[in-house]
Amino acid sequence: MLTLYFWPGSSSMAAHIALYEVGLPFEARSLSFQKREQREPWYLALNPEGTVPLLLIDGRPLTEVAAILHYLAKRCPEAGLWPEGDLEAQAHVISWMSFLAASVHPGLARGPEHAHRIYALAERRLQDTWAVGSYSIADIHLFRLFWRFSHSEGFIPDGFPKLLAHRERVLARPAVRKTIEVEAAIGYEISRFIPPTGA
Amino acid sequence: MLTLYFWPGSSSMAAHIALYEVGLPFEARSLSFQKREQREPWYLALNPEGTVPLLLIDGRPLTEVAAILHYLAKRCPEAGLWPEGDLEAQAHVISWMSFLAASVHPGLARGPEHAHRIYALAERRLQDTWAVGSYSIADIHLFRLFWRFSHSEGFIPDGFPKLLAHRERVLARPAVRKTIEVEAAIGYEISRFIPPTGA
Repeated sequence: MLTLYFWPGSSSMAAHIALYEVGLPFEARSLSFQKREQREPWYLALNPEGTVPLLLIDGRPLTEVAAILHYLAKRCPEAGLWPEGDLEAQAHVISWMSFLAASVHPGLARGPEHAHRIYALAERRLQDTWAVGSYSIADIHLFRLFWRFSHSEGFIPDGFPKLLAHRERVLARPAVRKTIEVEAAIGYEISRFIPPTGA
Repeated sequence: MLTLYFWPGSSSMAAHIALYEVGLPFEARSLSFQKREQREPWYLALNPEGTVPLLLIDGRPLTEVAAILHYLAKRCPEAGLWPEGDLEAQAHVISWMSFLAASVHPGLARGPEHAHRIYALAERRLQDTWAVGSYSIADIHLFRLFWRFSHSEGFIPDGFPKLLAHRERVLARPAVRKTIEVEAAIGYEISRFIPPTGA
């Protein structure tokens, strides 16, 4: 049994997309961070860091986008989201996700100028149609961040031809359209990055 | 042929330790970031982000600590640094490394008070002897960061009994002692986090 805790439009969207991609049944529970539900004791008992996404696997908590995507991709190899058997390609998928989580994700919170500089590095990193070979969990992670950035105030599209084309390719996937439909119906509460301590 | 580019005492130490752990032959090339060697054109041609560690695999560049550790652990399964066959344990290793790269690593640059708050989350996350089951690449990554924090100005050891005991367990490993010996002989130039743009 899988349960996803998410905020519509936030980082958890990547996990939400991956769940539809692999086709496993799951229960989706949305939190409101404007109501600070992520700081309520019942939620901190599941995830002391007070972040989303959180995936419960038969009640056992798993946090961090990269980890949830990796788990789902490995559990459902038929979905083709992980380059089985190719160690270097696997390492590049992990490299992309680490770069996205550590460098790109905090970029937007540091202002539009910094964000444009960071996404210029992502634009240069994207050499081909997909982040690594064929469509993988790295593309889901990249899509979610750039999708958000491309809808932020002050976004200047010049200089991002590869990322914009990548965004459109990912937007065409049924799993992505389904996620956006479900999350938009709840209503986006996109906000600035909230540090894990909730400070 | 493997070549590691590193700065003594920096994040690249984790990759350096993993290379000694798996026992593959490699060439180690130290950079000086005080001389800004990471911004020189020959280095940016290999790694446009200007960061370490960088691992060249037969000349092909691989960046990000988590990715290099994953590659080495998967390439040398006999070293036992990756929980082969256990999908949930694998996901937890990835979760730790993502948490370390995105939340813990930038902590120190944001001042000692913030760092102590972030490491309190890491202390709570560490439930047992090792991060996930047996010694893994997550422990190498965690060790490097906490080792650095525990030697930083203003570090208060109270409140970190599990992380301090973990540090001592990892310090006892021959691969770790060897790395510290090699890097100390070159000389540490530990500095604050340098953003990937070099700004």
